[in-house]
Amino acid sequence: MGVEKGTQLDKAVKNAKKIDSFLLSRLKGEPSDLYQAARYMIEHGGKRLRPYLVLKSCELLHGSMKQAIPAAAAVEMIHNFTLVHDDIMDNDEVRHGVPTVHTKFGTPVGILAGDLLFSKAFETISDPSAHIPKEVGLSLISMLSKACTDVCEGQVLDISMAKSKIIPTESQYITMIEKKTSSLFVASCAMGAISANTNESDVNRLSVYGRNLGISFQIIDDLIGITGDPKITKKPVGNDIREGKKSLPILLAIKFAKGKEKKTILNAFGNSRISKQAMVKVVAAIAELGIEETIRKKASYHLDTARKSISRYDNSAREDLLSLLDFVVERSL
Amino acid sequence: MGVEKGTQLDKAVKNAKKIDSFLLSRLKGEPSDLYQAARYMIEHGGKRLRPYLVLKSCELLHGSMKQAIPAAAAVEMIHNFTLVHDDIMDNDEVRHGVPTVHTKFGTPVGILAGDLLFSKAFETISDPSAHIPKEVGLSLISMLSKACTDVCEGQVLDISMAKSKIIPTESQYITMIEKKTSSLFVASCAMGAISANTNESDVNRLSVYGRNLGISFQIIDDLIGITGDPKITKKPVGNDIREGKKSLPILLAIKFAKGKEKKTILNAFGNSRISKQAMVKVVAAIAELGIEETIRKKASYHLDTARKSISRYDNSAREDLLSLLDFVVERSL
Repeated sequence: MGVEKGTQLDKAVKNAKKIDSFLLSRLKGEPSDLYQAARYMIEHGGKRLRPYLVLKSCELLHGSMKQAIPAAAAVEMIHNFTLVHDDIMDNDEVRHGVPTVHTKFGTPVGILAGDLLFSKAFETISDPSAHIPKEVGLSLISMLSKACTDVCEGQVLDISMAKSKIIPTESQYITMIEKKTSSLFVASCAMGAISANTNESDVNRLSVYGRNLGISFQIIDDLIGITGDPKITKKPVGNDIREGKKSLPILLAIKFAKGKEKKTILNAFGNSRISKQAMVKVVAAIAELGIEETIRKKASYHLDTARKSISRYDNSAREDLLSLLDFVVERSL
Repeated sequence: MGVEKGTQLDKAVKNAKKIDSFLLSRLKGEPSDLYQAARYMIEHGGKRLRPYLVLKSCELLHGSMKQAIPAAAAVEMIHNFTLVHDDIMDNDEVRHGVPTVHTKFGTPVGILAGDLLFSKAFETISDPSAHIPKEVGLSLISMLSKACTDVCEGQVLDISMAKSKIIPTESQYITMIEKKTSSLFVASCAMGAISANTNESDVNRLSVYGRNLGISFQIIDDLIGITGDPKITKKPVGNDIREGKKSLPILLAIKFAKGKEKKTILNAFGNSRISKQAMVKVVAAIAELGIEETIRKKASYHLDTARKSISRYDNSAREDLLSLLDFVVERSL
């Protein structure tokens, strides 16, 4: 499993490098501190999962990689725009082990670097030098702008959920992550299909793949937020419990736990003063409830749906998209 | 002059109302607090100058108003997006006499409301239900996204200028306002022309009109920031001097003043503790330097260039665009 995961990541990185030079060439200009701030997160890593989805979806439908590069760069810009603004909203000072953009460049330049990534994404697709057929270009813009709207809506749902004293239901939570996370996976896959200049049915099938991949990705992310190895995640054990995040594993733990266990979990929830030792016990209590199994089953269900949605295609891109599903469920970061 | 100005404003408002229902209909959705925040500034006023420019530029080139409505709504959304993010960056609590978006809805929702206005602008143009020809649509997107990039660049230039101890040159200042302010005026006029599905020469002429209108608009704005009647501007006398803004009238005053006068002006510059009486004297000293005349001449020069750029056209829309130039130089708010 470890080897497979490694191979899949290698592939993503290799493909990412192909778009990186294009992506970074679109983010050059003056004033230099604005452009440095806009490139900063991109230059400091990231898995390039979304560009990979654009490229592979296009390839699946017999489009050339070249056709999909502008769309691939655009989704990565939008992804980074959401990260930069997210970190400002959450007052997060560190991401991927380096200072966040606003910490390094100040909040005003941070906000503007996010805004620049946003405008550059749309500029990249609509630039005549990209030689995208007009019809394809406008469909890409429509898809991408709708995804951005969804992300904004999802973020506000997330903020409201975090503020509320009410524990959300599982379906409220899924609605939120569909908007906040899945929508850009959907857009990536759909934009890959659109770049291949194919029909609506193909776009729809790829969208189903993207949506289900996105949901699995987020709920596995949430699981890592609870059970993740602090050495790998670089976050303290039980970090999401301490921060009081209303993520799916926590919702389920609160729902399933009874009596003393429930009390222990609720006491740790959003409790910044809890000790590491006490948190290790809380995480163990959650493990005993079988939450991990439930979450992994749920993720598997969505991954199966994703798998089926592309079953009619038959080329190496399909194999890559299938391997990516395995990577999502097996990853530890 | 007052009557002309009033008439011009009335026209803008009347035209604005035609786009307002469309504009607000594009900003409906859930979660309601996000959409309320996005509509908030628009519902609390604004002159709708930019949509007016889109509509009139389209009409000038014999396009129908209906063709230009999506572009008109989009530029107003972008304008409002810049205001919302601006207020966050500047920590401004009041605009147009009401609390700013982030003051009312909190900074995270403020950032997201700005982002939503951004995505909705691009969604509005690329939405198939807008029935914009694909070629026109993609050119509109290209123009608008480039303008957004320019605005971001202009904002960072403005921030750097404000931070720097060096007083910028006049040409550095003009470069900054061309990007920060003029670019959206240029985009408005160009997008009106593009909506009329006309040729590149028309687009270029309207862009010249927009650029010069924009520069005049901003330098008159800067003049009002110094000499404006506090009863009308609702800001204290000499507000921009107190805040240490490096606006054109201030740059010129520092350049032209000598000896004791220069000392008085520099002492008031960025001095939040200066009394109202002392500030009245500073404003009078600047008036004696003939700064107002210099600025108005400069504005007139740009307005003449704008006037000439549309001289070949001959219909009522041209008259409206010419009257707007008078309005810009004569306004007191």
